Amino acid sequence: MRYRKIPDETIRRLPVYLRGLLSLLQEGQKRISSHNLANYLAIYPWQIRKDFSYFGGFGTPGVGYDIKNLIKQINKILKLDIVNKAALVGVGNLGSAVLAYPGFAIYGFNIAAAFDKNPKKIGKKIKNVTIEDVSNLRTLKKRKIKLAIIAVPGDAAQLTATALVKAGVTGILNFSPCRITVPKRVKVISIDIAIDLARLPYYMPAG
Amino acid sequence: MRYRKIPDETIRRLPVYLRGLLSLLQEGQKRISSHNLANYLAIYPWQIRKDFSYFGGFGTPGVGYDIKNLIKQINKILKLDIVNKAALVGVGNLGSAVLAYPGFAIYGFNIAAAFDKNPKKIGKKIKNVTIEDVSNLRTLKKRKIKLAIIAVPGDAAQLTATALVKAGVTGILNFSPCRITVPKRVKVISIDIAIDLARLPYYMPAG
Repeated sequence: MRYRKIPDETIRRLPVYLRGLLSLLQEGQKRISSHNLANYLAIYPWQIRKDFSYFGGFGTPGVGYDIKNLIKQINKILKLDIVNKAALVGVGNLGSAVLAYPGFAIYGFNIAAAFDKNPKKIGKKIKNVTIEDVSNLRTLKKRKIKLAIIAVPGDAAQLTATALVKAGVTGILNFSPCRITVPKRVKVISIDIAIDLARLPYYMPAG
Repeated sequence: MRYRKIPDETIRRLPVYLRGLLSLLQEGQKRISSHNLANYLAIYPWQIRKDFSYFGGFGTPGVGYDIKNLIKQINKILKLDIVNKAALVGVGNLGSAVLAYPGFAIYGFNIAAAFDKNPKKIGKKIKNVTIEDVSNLRTLKKRKIKLAIIAVPGDAAQLTATALVKAGVTGILNFSPCRITVPKRVKVISIDIAIDLARLPYYMPAG
């Protein structure tokens, strides 16, 4: 099933819902009312209802949501049930932090390969992943890894992206501070780790 | 002037507008139509107009936006013209990446202090910042640093947050994978560096 005309903002919130639901499940909860879910996530109830309405609603009025089922549905919509292997390119400070970060596993991701061009790093193991030479990027197709994380310096980002696309990658999470250009069929999400700091002062008390 | 009842989603987009406008300015542009700005940012024109309407609109119909003025206005709304010094706690992989990241300077931020508890790191310099012992956190008040970035392991996050609040910090960007609890007057924005990967598969072609 292919859902249509769903706003990007809704898709952006689905992982937020998913993370909250996974926490609730871990806390031992099985059902939750839309009201309590909204409270837990600090998102307006109408927003959640509107987002869920694109997929037929998920809940039965008055009964609340079945947490496990909701997780399964969201995983399916996001295709997290299909795509879960990712490659990392660039094992500097940020790349190492990515490899060590427990958050990827929460969504079911497995960073199954890591690449660097530094001979001193190649062959080393971080969190069970052996760092490979970037020339191995072309093996991604055979290994069926279609998702990649770019954590190389800005001046190497475009070259890396081009190599990834050539290796069959169709989804790129770009941590480098540069824009990259890829064919239309490839989706790039660029992360600016500084952008969230820029809205903090707004909420801080004066003086 | 204090603006009221502005949705968090609008505040979340203001830094996105700001970053785009700063790029345009750097490219030598002085004015831009709302249509072209929307294209450049890949955000719907109605969304931009709606967001800007909370602050009186910024533009003259038919003339477009004065980029420099718009940057100044957004900086003022976000209080980036007042708050620009930040402290970093935790200089591991992620913290080192934060220190080296050029993106903070784009918004005018200066990471003016860095702290770690590892004696091997204390005294070292990264990007002109000398790493200090975490016991120095209490000096933040005197140094008028009210903004802090937490990049410590999860099990140290709450202790760090408590120490920061005690030192007068009122805004925290939390990169640790744990929830932290602070008094209401303190604003925390928690970053999950994995969450954006979770919406990538949705956009990837099947097969």
